Amino acid sequence: MKIAVLGAGAMGGLFASYLCRHNDVTLVSRHEEQADLISKEGFTVLEKDGTKEIFHPHALVSTKDMEPQDLVILFVKSMANESVLAANRSLLGPDTYLCTLQNGSGHEEVLRKFVPEDHIILGTTQHNASTKARNITRHGGSGMTHLGCVTGDASRLQKFADCFTSCGLAADVSDRVQEMIWNKMFTNISASALTGALQVPLGYIVKDPYAWSLCCQLIGEAVDVAAALGMHFDKKEKILEVKTVCENAPDGLTSIYVDLKNGRKTEVDTITGSVVRAGEKTGVPTPGHSFLLKLIHAMEGRSRENS
Amino acid sequence: MKIAVLGAGAMGGLFASYLCRHNDVTLVSRHEEQADLISKEGFTVLEKDGTKEIFHPHALVSTKDMEPQDLVILFVKSMANESVLAANRSLLGPDTYLCTLQNGSGHEEVLRKFVPEDHIILGTTQHNASTKARNITRHGGSGMTHLGCVTGDASRLQKFADCFTSCGLAADVSDRVQEMIWNKMFTNISASALTGALQVPLGYIVKDPYAWSLCCQLIGEAVDVAAALGMHFDKKEKILEVKTVCENAPDGLTSIYVDLKNGRKTEVDTITGSVVRAGEKTGVPTPGHSFLLKLIHAMEGRSRENS
Repeated sequence: MKIAVLGAGAMGGLFASYLCRHNDVTLVSRHEEQADLISKEGFTVLEKDGTKEIFHPHALVSTKDMEPQDLVILFVKSMANESVLAANRSLLGPDTYLCTLQNGSGHEEVLRKFVPEDHIILGTTQHNASTKARNITRHGGSGMTHLGCVTGDASRLQKFADCFTSCGLAADVSDRVQEMIWNKMFTNISASALTGALQVPLGYIVKDPYAWSLCCQLIGEAVDVAAALGMHFDKKEKILEVKTVCENAPDGLTSIYVDLKNGRKTEVDTITGSVVRAGEKTGVPTPGHSFLLKLIHAMEGRSRENS
Repeated sequence: MKIAVLGAGAMGGLFASYLCRHNDVTLVSRHEEQADLISKEGFTVLEKDGTKEIFHPHALVSTKDMEPQDLVILFVKSMANESVLAANRSLLGPDTYLCTLQNGSGHEEVLRKFVPEDHIILGTTQHNASTKARNITRHGGSGMTHLGCVTGDASRLQKFADCFTSCGLAADVSDRVQEMIWNKMFTNISASALTGALQVPLGYIVKDPYAWSLCCQLIGEAVDVAAALGMHFDKKEKILEVKTVCENAPDGLTSIYVDLKNGRKTEVDTITGSVVRAGEKTGVPTPGHSFLLKLIHAMEGRSRENS
C-alpha cells in the first residue's frame, strides 16, 4: 500500500516506522534538516522493554512531485490540518483515503474540503509516544487503533485495519467510532483545558474545589451535547474517569498547559471548540466551554502581543 | 460626631484625616506599628496640587474599651468585612450607623449581621487615593460621595452627608444609591475581573478580540441582572464606558490582577460574586460570571497550594 504520513513528530514517526514494515511509506516533515536526518539515519523507535529498531520510511519536505497515495494519515497538530493538506494536495487522488487519529473531534469539517466524505477515516489510537530526538521516538504505550467513517458502513475500511495490524499496530473497524472519539475526549475537554487556563498540573484539578467544580460542569455540558448527537455517556461515570486520570498523573502537564506556557497556539479549537460547535449545531447550551474557549484564545493572544 | 474608620489603607487614612477636621475620629489599623506611627507623626495627605496636610485622628489596633460610635465606616478589603466587624463590635451600639463605600455590591448581606438594616449606609465615592507610606496617602482624585440606604428614605442620612461635606468631602444622599453602586461596578465585574484571570493590563481587554468578547458578555449579563433588580442600564452605553476606561489606562493593573499575581485572596466575591448572587436571586442566568468567579477562586488556590 502507498501511504503518506503528514507530520514527523513522535506519533507520526512511530506510525510511519511500523507501517513501512510492509508498505511504501513516505513521512512528511516541515523541516528539511529533519527529513535529511531521517533519510540518512532512519527513524528509531525505542520500545518500553528497552529494545530498539531502526526504520527507513522515505522522508520528504515537499511532496509536489509525488503521485496520489492509497492512504494519507494526519499526525500534525490539528490546527495545522488545513494548511498541511493544502500544501500536500498532490497526495490526494480520487481513490485516496484520508485518515486522522488526532485528539479532539470534528476534524472531518476540514478533511471534507480535500476528499469526498466517504473517503475520510476517523479513528482513535491507544498508542502514545514522545520525542527523544528528531528521528528517535519513545514508544510509551500500545493498544488498539479503531478506525471508522463519517458516512456508510465501516467494514469497507477492513483492508486498512488489516494493513495496520499486519505491521504491529493492532486495529479494527467500528461503526461507533464517533462515540469512541468522544469517549476519549472527556479528559481533554475538561481537566486538560482547565490546566491550561489555570497553568497548573493535572492533580490540581481534583485538589482545588473550585477547579473541580468547573471540571464537572464541563464534563456535564459535554455529556449533554453528546446525548443530542445520539451518544450516551453517564455523567457520574465520566466524572469518575477524569478524576482517576488526574489522580494517577498529579504532576502531569497537558499539551494545552505547555503550549500556553511557551506562548504557542494550542489545539483548543479541536478540543473545547468541538464541543462548542457541536452544542451550537444541536442547540445544547455550552456556556462553560464557550467561556473557556475564548479565555484560552485570549491567553494565546498574550504572546502575539509580546512578540 | 464620633466616627470610627475601620482600615487604615490609602482610602481609610484619607477619610479619617478629612473627617477629623470637625469630628472625634478613630482610625483602626490591623498593625500595632502603623497605629503607633500615626499616633506619633499623624497621617499625611499629599494633594495633587503639591500641597500636603498632616492630620491627627486617634489611631488604635484594639477598640474593645471604646464606646459605641455615631458612625462606623468600613475601608478594609471587602472580604475582611465580617471578621473586622466582629473584632470591633464594641463600636456598634443601637444608634450607630454603619457605612460602606467599598467597591462591589451586596455588602449589606454581611453588614446586617451587625446592625439593623435601617442603620446601614451604602455609598459610592469618586475619591481615590494610593498609599505612599504607612501614614502617608496620595490623594489622586476627588469628586462626589453619594450615600444611601437599604430601606426607607435616604433623606434621614442628610446629617452624615453634611458632616462629610463640611470636612471637605462633598456628599449628598440619594434614593438611587444601589443604581449608583451598580453603575460604578461595570468595569470591575468585566474588564477588571478579566485582567485578573488573564494576568494582563487593562488595555489588553480592548485589544484582544477574544478578551473583548468575554468582556462584552460579562457586561451584558450584568445589565440583565440589574434590570431584574429594577435598574435600567443600556448595554451599548456600558460597553462604551468600559471600553473608554480600558483605552484611557491601557497599562493600568487592577487590584484583582495584582492580588492574584502576589498570591493573595482577591475581592472577587463582592465584585463578580455579587452579580452571581443577584442572578441567582432574580433567576437571571450569569454563566460567564459564574465560570469566572470559580476560575479566579481556583487561581487564588494555586498560592494556597504553594505556601
